[in-house]
Amino acid sequence: MANITAVSPLAPASFPALPAIEGVRFATAAAGVKYQGRTDVMLATLSPGSVVAGAFTRSATRSAPVLDCQAKITQHSDAPAAILVNSGNSNAFTGKGGTASVEAITSAVAQTCDVPQSRVFTSSTGVIGEPLPHDRIISVLDSLAADLQLDGIAAAADAIMTTDTFPKGAGTTVQVDGKTVSIAGIAKGSGMIAPDMATMLVYIFTDAQISHGALQTLVSRLNDKTFNAITVDSDTSTSDSLIVAATGASGVDVSADEGFATALHEVMQDLAHQVVRDGEGATKFVEVTVTGAATDSDAKCHAMAIANSPLVKTAIAGEDPNWGRVVMAVGKSGAAADRDRLSIRFGDVEVAKDGWRSVHYSEEDAAAHMKGENILISVDIGIGEGQSTVWTCDLTHGYISINADYRS
Amino acid sequence: MANITAVSPLAPASFPALPAIEGVRFATAAAGVKYQGRTDVMLATLSPGSVVAGAFTRSATRSAPVLDCQAKITQHSDAPAAILVNSGNSNAFTGKGGTASVEAITSAVAQTCDVPQSRVFTSSTGVIGEPLPHDRIISVLDSLAADLQLDGIAAAADAIMTTDTFPKGAGTTVQVDGKTVSIAGIAKGSGMIAPDMATMLVYIFTDAQISHGALQTLVSRLNDKTFNAITVDSDTSTSDSLIVAATGASGVDVSADEGFATALHEVMQDLAHQVVRDGEGATKFVEVTVTGAATDSDAKCHAMAIANSPLVKTAIAGEDPNWGRVVMAVGKSGAAADRDRLSIRFGDVEVAKDGWRSVHYSEEDAAAHMKGENILISVDIGIGEGQSTVWTCDLTHGYISINADYRS
Repeated sequence: MANITAVSPLAPASFPALPAIEGVRFATAAAGVKYQGRTDVMLATLSPGSVVAGAFTRSATRSAPVLDCQAKITQHSDAPAAILVNSGNSNAFTGKGGTASVEAITSAVAQTCDVPQSRVFTSSTGVIGEPLPHDRIISVLDSLAADLQLDGIAAAADAIMTTDTFPKGAGTTVQVDGKTVSIAGIAKGSGMIAPDMATMLVYIFTDAQISHGALQTLVSRLNDKTFNAITVDSDTSTSDSLIVAATGASGVDVSADEGFATALHEVMQDLAHQVVRDGEGATKFVEVTVTGAATDSDAKCHAMAIANSPLVKTAIAGEDPNWGRVVMAVGKSGAAADRDRLSIRFGDVEVAKDGWRSVHYSEEDAAAHMKGENILISVDIGIGEGQSTVWTCDLTHGYISINADYRS
Repeated sequence: MANITAVSPLAPASFPALPAIEGVRFATAAAGVKYQGRTDVMLATLSPGSVVAGAFTRSATRSAPVLDCQAKITQHSDAPAAILVNSGNSNAFTGKGGTASVEAITSAVAQTCDVPQSRVFTSSTGVIGEPLPHDRIISVLDSLAADLQLDGIAAAADAIMTTDTFPKGAGTTVQVDGKTVSIAGIAKGSGMIAPDMATMLVYIFTDAQISHGALQTLVSRLNDKTFNAITVDSDTSTSDSLIVAATGASGVDVSADEGFATALHEVMQDLAHQVVRDGEGATKFVEVTVTGAATDSDAKCHAMAIANSPLVKTAIAGEDPNWGRVVMAVGKSGAAADRDRLSIRFGDVEVAKDGWRSVHYSEEDAAAHMKGENILISVDIGIGEGQSTVWTCDLTHGYISINADYRS
């Protein structure tokens, strides 16, 4: 059970220094939703004119707060906005009571922060199926509103954690038209991670100026290559939410700027990788790249089949260059493949080529790659131009320990 | 590591007494394909007029012997036939050499047993990607042919085992038009088990008289409810093969007999359940029944999402009635669901109804059910008439131990 409380061996050395985003302020509180002795609610407020976009789980049993966010996020208004997140209880599968809790919280936040209720976005993460004690959250709103500060993002990252072993943050700055645009984001998530999307909550803030439509289009596109390209255990949460807010405070229009898109991509990918690095029981960070598939979609299908295969993931845990299991995963994925054109590399080591063990194959070299912390599996399907990269972790005794004892 | 060599706690008490099938004879030998000190090849011969049907993996990387069987099994001839199976090496992902091995073996069996090569069906199971030393198999054919006997099926079940912890057999007799028809089958498989189909080899024999077309139709239909309704780890083998042979020796035409169909269904289901009971690391046998889905296909999609979910399977290992994870699995399956009509039972205990925790829910009663060896999860989607039942096992430390050290 040591894995449960210890910080993941794949964690970054420390929480990064993130740029302050003008127009965003944060506060956290300990409401005792479920956890004791730690913060479990975070409030972020967004200045008037902020643009808010997002992406959410496609689970058919998604939670009440997700449904509420999805309904609101398609509309833009120039009014100020607020984001409220609690950990400890996901308010998922809580029937009509769940909807009432969202109504109660968003109404109270609107009143306390003086923003329209239609501009209050909430997320809840934690246990499924227990009524959310929303009164506890509402009772700390006044103190949250009084504590709001520009540099509170690190504390916010702490407050949204559940089974995470470390808080997750990423940020960058980018020069656009000679001016600096800043991006800073936080995330939580460690288990139940798979498209779409994860037990994963992600909040990213920028002072860029961008239209609502352009931001939504950009976020959707980048989401497919980042948060929808990671998997820990193939299980999909009922609560996954990604919210990206642009305050416009920099005065720099980035609507058609590729540099900004690249910077946002980097921040999203960094956060997505950190979620995998906190995968329950993870000891290896695994990148799976598939090329030569019939289409990009087929490539992602193959890559996810490899990344989700329990046999591939246990072989990685055992530091075994078992490429037969990669062949198996490609075969079962459902996407097009030709056994006799398939090539596989572990790191730089060619292990299989044209449907058979490579003539250059060295079990010793392949085994040496598997002993590292970062594992790279490259598969060329050999029939087209489609490609995709996804990330996952290994499947270990730690995952079993954490998930066979999580609730009881 | 104790789980690797110990017999599964879910194994039947003993190998069953199986009826002899007139027209079928068996022999086994120790060819040293990979294993030492045990039999690893089995030969079965079928009398002239025998009808052979089957079902095979749909993996895009399926093995050379599977491709050979699939090509042959669509044709019928009144000539005698033979089935040859080796364990230790799957002859999968072995390029042109794999095809040559199948050609060499089927040619040699045809000559030794005096049957057309087009009526020689072979299977190979074991490690992927290693050249099959087919000379070792061919060198024991003469002694196999000399040892053929009517009551050799139990020894055959032993010879085809790989990581299995017990040999698998099932049989029955059924009265048709006042005469007795017998069915006897064997199977192997314990990991890499998922539709379609498994690292699973199944051979079933009957003295029934039936047309080639009628037998194939029946086998395909029953396969969907048995071998394609089990999963251990969601991984699909490159070698799965089910072969059903009817010698006709009873002289009883069963082409339109429902009693025979039911009896064959029972034998197939029994063998499928034994494969799950030998699931790597399994400590619980789990039946998942979904009702009220939009279609039968949707019901199977939901049932498989539940049965394959690592979070559901680890909760079962932990004897935790964690119905939130069942909700999650239904939500991610991709099939239609309405959160507010969903009901869930663990055994007889209603845990959730109409989208929320049941008012009758007793955690104590639910936990008591989870402590048993046989776990029943029933989910009613509440939107239609579609239903499906699938079987799986829990996900334990034993699975990790076995699969992180299998090859090295």
